Amino acid sequence: TNEFIVSLSCPDRPGIVHAVSGALLSVGCNITESQQFESPETHNFFMRIAVATDRDIESVREALGPVREQFGMDLKLTAAGALLRTLIMVSKEAHALNDLLFSQRAGTLPVHVPIIVSNHLDLKPLADFHGIEFVHIPVTAATKVQAEAKLLELVAEHNIELVVLARYMQILSDDLCRALNGRAINIHHSFLPSFKGAKPYHQAHARGVKLIGATAHYVTADLDEGPIIDQEVIRVSHARTAEQFVAMGRDVEGRTLTRAVGWHAERRVMLDGHRTVVFS
Amino acid sequence: TNEFIVSLSCPDRPGIVHAVSGALLSVGCNITESQQFESPETHNFFMRIAVATDRDIESVREALGPVREQFGMDLKLTAAGALLRTLIMVSKEAHALNDLLFSQRAGTLPVHVPIIVSNHLDLKPLADFHGIEFVHIPVTAATKVQAEAKLLELVAEHNIELVVLARYMQILSDDLCRALNGRAINIHHSFLPSFKGAKPYHQAHARGVKLIGATAHYVTADLDEGPIIDQEVIRVSHARTAEQFVAMGRDVEGRTLTRAVGWHAERRVMLDGHRTVVFS
Amino acid sequence: TNEFIVSLSCPDRPGIVHAVSGALLSVGCNITESQQFESPETHNFFMRIAVATDRDIESVREALGPVREQFGMDLKLTAAGALLRTLIMVSKEAHALNDLLFSQRAGTLPVHVPIIVSNHLDLKPLADFHGIEFVHIPVTAATKVQAEAKLLELVAEHNIELVVLARYMQILSDDLCRALNGRAINIHHSFLPSFKGAKPYHQAHARGVKLIGATAHYVTADLDEGPIIDQEVIRVSHARTAEQFVAMGRDVEGRTLTRAVGWHAERRVMLDGHRTVVFS
Amino acid sequence: TNEFIVSLSCPDRPGIVHAVSGALLSVGCNITESQQFESPETHNFFMRIAVATDRDIESVREALGPVREQFGMDLKLTAAGALLRTLIMVSKEAHALNDLLFSQRAGTLPVHVPIIVSNHLDLKPLADFHGIEFVHIPVTAATKVQAEAKLLELVAEHNIELVVLARYMQILSDDLCRALNGRAINIHHSFLPSFKGAKPYHQAHARGVKLIGATAHYVTADLDEGPIIDQEVIRVSHARTAEQFVAMGRDVEGRTLTRAVGWHAERRVMLDGHRTVVFS
Repeated sequence: TNEFIVSLSCPDRPGIVHAVSGALLSVGCNITESQQFESPETHNFFMRIAVATDRDIESVREALGPVREQFGMDLKLTAAGALLRTLIMVSKEAHALNDLLFSQRAGTLPVHVPIIVSNHLDLKPLADFHGIEFVHIPVTAATKVQAEAKLLELVAEHNIELVVLARYMQILSDDLCRALNGRAINIHHSFLPSFKGAKPYHQAHARGVKLIGATAHYVTADLDEGPIIDQEVIRVSHARTAEQFVAMGRDVEGRTLTRAVGWHAERRVMLDGHRTVVFS
Repeated sequence: TNEFIVSLSCPDRPGIVHAVSGALLSVGCNITESQQFESPETHNFFMRIAVATDRDIESVREALGPVREQFGMDLKLTAAGALLRTLIMVSKEAHALNDLLFSQRAGTLPVHVPIIVSNHLDLKPLADFHGIEFVHIPVTAATKVQAEAKLLELVAEHNIELVVLARYMQILSDDLCRALNGRAINIHHSFLPSFKGAKPYHQAHARGVKLIGATAHYVTADLDEGPIIDQEVIRVSHARTAEQFVAMGRDVEGRTLTRAVGWHAERRVMLDGHRTVVFS
Repeated sequence: TNEFIVSLSCPDRPGIVHAVSGALLSVGCNITESQQFESPETHNFFMRIAVATDRDIESVREALGPVREQFGMDLKLTAAGALLRTLIMVSKEAHALNDLLFSQRAGTLPVHVPIIVSNHLDLKPLADFHGIEFVHIPVTAATKVQAEAKLLELVAEHNIELVVLARYMQILSDDLCRALNGRAINIHHSFLPSFKGAKPYHQAHARGVKLIGATAHYVTADLDEGPIIDQEVIRVSHARTAEQFVAMGRDVEGRTLTRAVGWHAERRVMLDGHRTVVFS
Repeated sequence: TNEFIVSLSCPDRPGIVHAVSGALLSVGCNITESQQFESPETHNFFMRIAVATDRDIESVREALGPVREQFGMDLKLTAAGALLRTLIMVSKEAHALNDLLFSQRAGTLPVHVPIIVSNHLDLKPLADFHGIEFVHIPVTAATKVQAEAKLLELVAEHNIELVVLARYMQILSDDLCRALNGRAINIHHSFLPSFKGAKPYHQAHARGVKLIGATAHYVTADLDEGPIIDQEVIRVSHARTAEQFVAMGRDVEGRTLTRAVGWHAERRVMLDGHRTVVFS
């Protein structure tokens, strides 16, 4: 038996579910999981379906073709469990990278990471341990354009489907953001929209909040304003310093990012304007 | 436009979604929300669908008739937002009752409570404030049989669809449990299966646990073993006494029970053997 | 045996604990609970001590006098379990008021509420049920000055120690904020500093956040910027509307406010500049 | 300036705080953090104090000597930030070990791990990456006695202060449990006391619970009954299989164990009969 994931979106109108389920039935697909959402604001329809069938992926793709056309769908069909080709960008902090690589190694994060890119050399040993190529691309004001060009070359060369900024401490240019639109995920170390910009834990400490957190979001040219995929917070007390906030937050950042990447890799996240639909 | 909820379960086999969506399409139903689950252990299929249509409930029921028959479905069709007729049983503690009545009054819990039954008189003022009939049925070893008979009379007389035990401190007889099977919900003041039976907070304190909680479950003859609908815990420290556990737990009990009753009333809970499917 | 609470703050320097514990020992006080904090930013010292003794409150006060003077302490001595005289202000929404009154009635919130003030009549029945005087003070642009003067009269007349804004939908004047400085608590329906101002749940929905929440804070003239006492969040999905955020948030608002009021009443909250120390 | 941690327990009686703070003051100690607890059941008194002073550890020890004697205290004095010498035992699963080693490397877990012991070879590469000696001690029914003797030799040889069972899948003998009493911590993959024994996630799945979790506890001869240090749970739905529970639980196990080990290493955990006092 083969298992496939169908994820689709289109303008809402009657008959979508019936048409899709009919096409799937015609190639012997049993629906094992299905979630859908109709956005009351944008009137877009979103659906994710897991199916099992004896037929191959081409047969299923062919069967869905007319439906896709009829409803003007953005439709993706993938093999369940397929590993998403992912490039990870880091600077000096190891925790988010460690979380991603450990989860991928343990088999709980369906990504394949052929390459790690960093503007520093600190995390090369961790990449080596996991047997992943580590490319050092230093970034200065003078070399930023070339550095980003080099990154896009690597993305093309390795057929990268997702770029993950795992505490990468450089701001991407607008051009790069646009080039990676919808396929780059960042972790911000606050519960956005609070504490945008630099040193969010220190901002949080100064404000005296009782919860700190992290936000995984798609990268857009509008800094810290990209569509939010997931957020998590933890409780802090007055007795903790800003430095302790930083240390406590690492764990939250790592798991929030890893969860968001996993949902994206499993085709559970779709864009609805500036917001995300997450079939978790 | 009318909005309806279809909730159904049946043995799994291909074609269910297509058949159901076809029947719904034939009476102009647009699917606005849908969730489904195929149990890998029992091979049962569960589905909950919200639809909007210009047609009336009888037309929809008729359209679904052949599908129901073909797949041997247990299928319920109700108007969205319909209030479930609910009888609440209490003893002396007010918190769970207060949570239920307040939520119902605020319009966030879709139940109608025509009657409250208690083996004590303490909570009559709260029932009076909400304008709900309060029936005092004292229970002793000698009168238990009559008391339960009286309760079943009230259930029949008021067309009760759900009985909620909101910290009702009497154990129901096996016969009564069977009579109310699948339509009685209890709140137990521990995270079952830990600390069954009496004084669970004191048991928890003696064991030195760091989390205490509550469990909302369907009532079965097997005490504290009924299918679990929802659970919640809170963190406690060594500095809290068993009495403080009791006080801290009240809030958790109230909202866990209210949430479980709400899900049941919205047809989001279905039984899969000894477990529940919850389309929350 | 009498039980007392000592809460104090002063500039930090060596010997405070020894001096305080010595004074307490001299009047037979056994320390049953103690928490302290030295703020690394402000170099203020904070301490809360629970003691048991056969002596009366005047003896303890007298014993602490010299220590208070020596260290320039802001020191409060109260009987443990004393009920804080609290005035609650509301508008039309009942949930926060209901939570406060229910907790106070159940004995878990150590406040006495002699009076409820509202700019609307909607919640009078709830006040009546709890046997609490309800004063209707309508507020218009024209009458705002008199309305606030009337409020301060009531505060004085009833020896009010704390004013709680339980979803009171009028902005207090700067003068009133100053008059109530450190003894007025508000509940804001977002996890501040996100979504200040009006309709925070709608702002949160538009931004696509995955967590919504509430913040209990001291009232200051700087709107939504007062020192935070407590915050709490809950998880929301894309499938919830802004209106559902509002409904889901009520529960969080009520319990966050009630918890903050309880901590304040038990002398567990102290101001450290713009932040709070909370000995929870 | 030197910083020290004093952790102590003794039978409760008046004057302890005054005596301890006096002794500390006599050697120029400023108290920067202090927590205490008087157990109402056992009438034991527990205290943890952080101090800063120009004097050395021997001077402080000497000053505390008479107080220790007078009150019959169990008193430990350590340098703040001292690394606890810790031996980790593992079998085949990497997640808990990875969490511990990563936190220790990042400087957030104050332990020094000179040696890792395993009954399998699977995790040797991870130990090698961190530059930690890995000792393979296979265990069979026939060799169990020698294996445990070898372990105790290693504990003695390396001056081990704490043994951590990071998903070590062998049951320790009663003798070994006694030998390591109060200095061995295990992670159990359920929210004890639910689901003791083998395959707890499968037990949890079969019971249909809505929360799964992990428990870090001291090892005692009474299996899964040792004093609990910390617990944590996560929410699961009907749609998750027992295998998915296992995968989801790993993250919880790792961080619950790491947190418990950290608290122990910072002298924040003390035994109060069968329960723990945790000054977190």
